[in-house]
Amino acid sequence: MATTETLSSHSAKRPPSLDFNPITFIEQKKQGVAHTAVAIHDFVQGVMAGTVADYQLSAWLMAVCLKGLTEDETFYLTEAFVQSGEILNLEGIEGTFVDKHSTGGVGDKTTLVVVPLLASMGLKIAKLSGRGLGFTGGTIDKLEAIPGFKVAQSTQAMREQLQQVGAVLSSQTGDLAPADAPFYALRDVTATMDNLSLIAASVVSKKIASGADVIIIDIKVGRGAFMKTLTEAKALASLCRTIGAKFGKRLETIISSMDQPLGTAIGHSVEILEVVETLKGKGSTDLEHLSLALSCVACVSAGLFPTAETAWVALKEKLNNGEAFLQFEAIVRAQGGDVEALDPETNALPQPARMATIMAPTSGYIHQIDSLKVAKAVKLLGGGRAQKTDVLDLSVGVQLQHKVGDFVEEGEVLAKVFTGKHHFNEAIETLKSAFQYATFPLDEQPPLILESSLPLFLHLNN
Amino acid sequence: MATTETLSSHSAKRPPSLDFNPITFIEQKKQGVAHTAVAIHDFVQGVMAGTVADYQLSAWLMAVCLKGLTEDETFYLTEAFVQSGEILNLEGIEGTFVDKHSTGGVGDKTTLVVVPLLASMGLKIAKLSGRGLGFTGGTIDKLEAIPGFKVAQSTQAMREQLQQVGAVLSSQTGDLAPADAPFYALRDVTATMDNLSLIAASVVSKKIASGADVIIIDIKVGRGAFMKTLTEAKALASLCRTIGAKFGKRLETIISSMDQPLGTAIGHSVEILEVVETLKGKGSTDLEHLSLALSCVACVSAGLFPTAETAWVALKEKLNNGEAFLQFEAIVRAQGGDVEALDPETNALPQPARMATIMAPTSGYIHQIDSLKVAKAVKLLGGGRAQKTDVLDLSVGVQLQHKVGDFVEEGEVLAKVFTGKHHFNEAIETLKSAFQYATFPLDEQPPLILESSLPLFLHLNN
Repeated sequence: MATTETLSSHSAKRPPSLDFNPITFIEQKKQGVAHTAVAIHDFVQGVMAGTVADYQLSAWLMAVCLKGLTEDETFYLTEAFVQSGEILNLEGIEGTFVDKHSTGGVGDKTTLVVVPLLASMGLKIAKLSGRGLGFTGGTIDKLEAIPGFKVAQSTQAMREQLQQVGAVLSSQTGDLAPADAPFYALRDVTATMDNLSLIAASVVSKKIASGADVIIIDIKVGRGAFMKTLTEAKALASLCRTIGAKFGKRLETIISSMDQPLGTAIGHSVEILEVVETLKGKGSTDLEHLSLALSCVACVSAGLFPTAETAWVALKEKLNNGEAFLQFEAIVRAQGGDVEALDPETNALPQPARMATIMAPTSGYIHQIDSLKVAKAVKLLGGGRAQKTDVLDLSVGVQLQHKVGDFVEEGEVLAKVFTGKHHFNEAIETLKSAFQYATFPLDEQPPLILESSLPLFLHLNN
Repeated sequence: MATTETLSSHSAKRPPSLDFNPITFIEQKKQGVAHTAVAIHDFVQGVMAGTVADYQLSAWLMAVCLKGLTEDETFYLTEAFVQSGEILNLEGIEGTFVDKHSTGGVGDKTTLVVVPLLASMGLKIAKLSGRGLGFTGGTIDKLEAIPGFKVAQSTQAMREQLQQVGAVLSSQTGDLAPADAPFYALRDVTATMDNLSLIAASVVSKKIASGADVIIIDIKVGRGAFMKTLTEAKALASLCRTIGAKFGKRLETIISSMDQPLGTAIGHSVEILEVVETLKGKGSTDLEHLSLALSCVACVSAGLFPTAETAWVALKEKLNNGEAFLQFEAIVRAQGGDVEALDPETNALPQPARMATIMAPTSGYIHQIDSLKVAKAVKLLGGGRAQKTDVLDLSVGVQLQHKVGDFVEEGEVLAKVFTGKHHFNEAIETLKSAFQYATFPLDEQPPLILESSLPLFLHLNN
């Protein structure tokens, strides 16, 4: 691994070649020829400069989907994304910087648990998150359910908050790996989303540009995730680690199941409340376990603990003793948010117009809660975007009362549904259809954590 | 072959589907799934309506290059191109209509020989041609070397001329198969030119839309042609015939060599003069043979003669007795051109600033005259376009004095070069580099006609 060499090529921006020809470049990939580093940098620079047209980029993206990129090509692409913008300026701030990314799931609020939890351990974390364009909102949308919370932080404000509070939760700035944006936007509308190299370059470039020392990527697999099979997820995890290593970074991966929603809340206000419960050590088992696992890997990777076991005990204690929640309050306060609103009794988060329940139509064991259908139900209620400009209803959502494996009696409440003005009946029907029952119990609880690049211990896998 | 069925689907335009999703469509081709007729029509209509973006079209084009289209899909695409515009209105005009297409070559002026020759046999031919965007000009550019010649003819003017003169040579109108244009324009800039189905759909749709009964396609193969191998050319020929048959048309193909330029003149004025000589039965052997072969196939296909042999004798007589040339004069006169200018003595075509010669640097046999290099030389002189808007110098060109297989003495003139203001030295050097010599003769003359879908006879192949 030529870490030193690649790092030096990373730090020195290459001037664009005058004789770069995008048509020849596309033709090469069509024929399955591996691009040189120089050619890939020229191509990305051409995209940013507008000398490569979007129809040329999309033709190349399709050729990549069908002919692939080597690990080296994937690294060059990632590197070119990074070099298209700035590296977050963390100079002069003491500490080990951690960054965390999730490939996206239903009910996935781990970022909001992991960030204060790691900060409570003394790690620094500047977490830049996106808005949702899938079925449910993104982390930034969820944070906006907290009255007053300012999601857009300048680099200067981030630096100050990192020094004072140790962590910041901000929306993405256009300065970090900006070349990823035109690639991502085109992939979304040209059926070229699912190539592992393109995914890895997109994910890893943002993390490298965030300047973190330790990077943890949570790759979701299953019905409600982009990766549908474990094989695919493992390949993506391995590729991300390889690319991270080429940058000289400690990049660790966890693969976790997204067959059923994570935790019990799906929405915005409801997810914030679940985050608060989890940060107080009273969250649902799966959300707590995944949050602890991700945090364990970060702590071990950062050298705070020798093993996941020792990290686990310390992290769990931060939940139980309230320090993790205090850290979250400190972040919310620093970003102008109303910490009183986080109290379930105060009820100051956006409130739904009404609440409904869905009941078990039969007695039996729950064998499946389809994440995708739950997400669609929330979207129908107004909690997801069809277009970038759509305004979300942050008050709507679903609160699961049971999870996969539970036995329910006929007529027992399966989920509470917080509704607004939108598509009530359709949402209810979609939500109902997410549940599948059987008269016999599951052979075993479906595993939550399917792979970790750092050794965890057995009881995490339940 | 469901000719009746396909013809009826061809005549009835389908309404666009409301639920057509271009992303799903692209994804299908990425996965190698065959599209339905309805989906392909919806896609083409979407391109024309602007609901399919050019970056989506180019992603699909790349998927087609790498996953292919079936014969049925190629037919549906061709059909959708045809239905995107009008069919040339030939109603009420008596006779059998012939159309001819060449995939493009260096020194290829066969259209200007074949059209009057076939018209002199009583066949009707409305030939729509393009301008060149490759190394040398197109048929329409060449015709503009004739003072006064109007290349843009309205449908009404074409109808009148067809009735009075039997043939018309016009620039392409935007009314015929207009959907081909955005596909072609994008293929040119996204390295997706070389897929046989896309080529066949482009070529055949224009010919179907021209309303001809008999269609002859001359597929060029070799150094100066788009098809580099005979295998590729045969596959394209076969595909074009299959698609033609699905439209219920008699579509015949000839594959001819483009390793050396066709005839002796490459340019505009010089090519017009060579056409005149050939129409008087005094042209170079290869140009005359290919023109006669194409015309033979057209005549036999149109039912004028039972065999190529009988057609050949009659056609050759039309060249020798001057009727073919008289027919050309009639066309030129009908379109406002100065027929006096066609007399080599009158010298009224655009005249070059000066004339140079290149000489054989050694005594020996000519083993190769690289078409592409000759074309590049003419382009350097100002006879080709780099961009659509470039103005051509119609006076420049090359007149070969020898062809492949000839023995030349050191210092003997190989070619005359008619030059203007542009890149004289570079053009001369490029032209010189086109010739390759050896001390020994060729084993055999390189064949001109490599395949014909209708049987020709042996001496044509020399």
